[in-house]
Amino acid sequence: MRPPGPTIRTIPDGDDRERLVCGDCGFVVYENPKVIVGAICTWDDRYLLVKRAIEPRLGFWTMPVGYMELGETTEQGAAREVWEEARSRVEIDGLLSIYSIPEISQVHMIYRARMLTPDHAAGAESLDVALLRWDEIPWDHLAYPNVRWSLEYEREMKGQTGFAPRGRPER
Amino acid sequence: MRPPGPTIRTIPDGDDRERLVCGDCGFVVYENPKVIVGAICTWDDRYLLVKRAIEPRLGFWTMPVGYMELGETTEQGAAREVWEEARSRVEIDGLLSIYSIPEISQVHMIYRARMLTPDHAAGAESLDVALLRWDEIPWDHLAYPNVRWSLEYEREMKGQTGFAPRGRPER
Repeated sequence: MRPPGPTIRTIPDGDDRERLVCGDCGFVVYENPKVIVGAICTWDDRYLLVKRAIEPRLGFWTMPVGYMELGETTEQGAAREVWEEARSRVEIDGLLSIYSIPEISQVHMIYRARMLTPDHAAGAESLDVALLRWDEIPWDHLAYPNVRWSLEYEREMKGQTGFAPRGRPER
Repeated sequence: MRPPGPTIRTIPDGDDRERLVCGDCGFVVYENPKVIVGAICTWDDRYLLVKRAIEPRLGFWTMPVGYMELGETTEQGAAREVWEEARSRVEIDGLLSIYSIPEISQVHMIYRARMLTPDHAAGAESLDVALLRWDEIPWDHLAYPNVRWSLEYEREMKGQTGFAPRGRPER
């Protein structure tokens, strides 16, 4: 017996790609890449990082980052993630990086942001949150390569505006 | 009687937002914003535009643009759309614009691209395709405001690299 829900891979009428379709009701799931938004947030010369309370990479450090939700701009999504994960209010002021990860169909957009106050606290998805000087950043315990890349590009572009966002470094 | 498929709006266990759930099988639809990718393509001083063969805005002109698909980068998606709609091979070389449209949960990413040859032809979703000089562009018959914005920014940034992508103009 077929399990319930959209489990059949087929090309719907008028389409040119395989989609998941429900054999019972005909519902078609149009899957497209997801946008992940986040921000490298600073207060003076300190960087706001959170320690992940959820898998994957539980216990490792990252900038606040997460799935963009319906009804928001990329900048609003980045500021929302900062609030949810680090309880800090920020002003977004430039796009640091765009990383497409086609293997998992994600587009990561990481902004530069200025904290409006030094206030911060761990949100529900964070074990800890810290406002760290550059040499205090736990470089060996970062969750993903793009945490380091985004931090480094933020530092490189300090004081500059009108710069182009970076992609993944060439391998 | 309830119609089949995911029709119930509810907050699933462990989530904090309403999602569409199927009352029969429990399938949860995680809807996130969609990415739209496209490119302003040039050959010498001419711009590649297509006349839309599908609604919305059937019969109006646009740069090649469409939904990003699974398993591709944003640049690959933009080049694919150019091929599908205008049958032209291009090299992507800079991000001109990022337009979030929260009202319809879309993020538009429009690149600058160089045509590798002057070849072009109407794809299945295009009524017509044209390689036009600036003063030949059908300004009064463009499909969307961001066609004009992206064309104008491409022209403004001609010969420049390392520029920041633009958002929607302030209203």
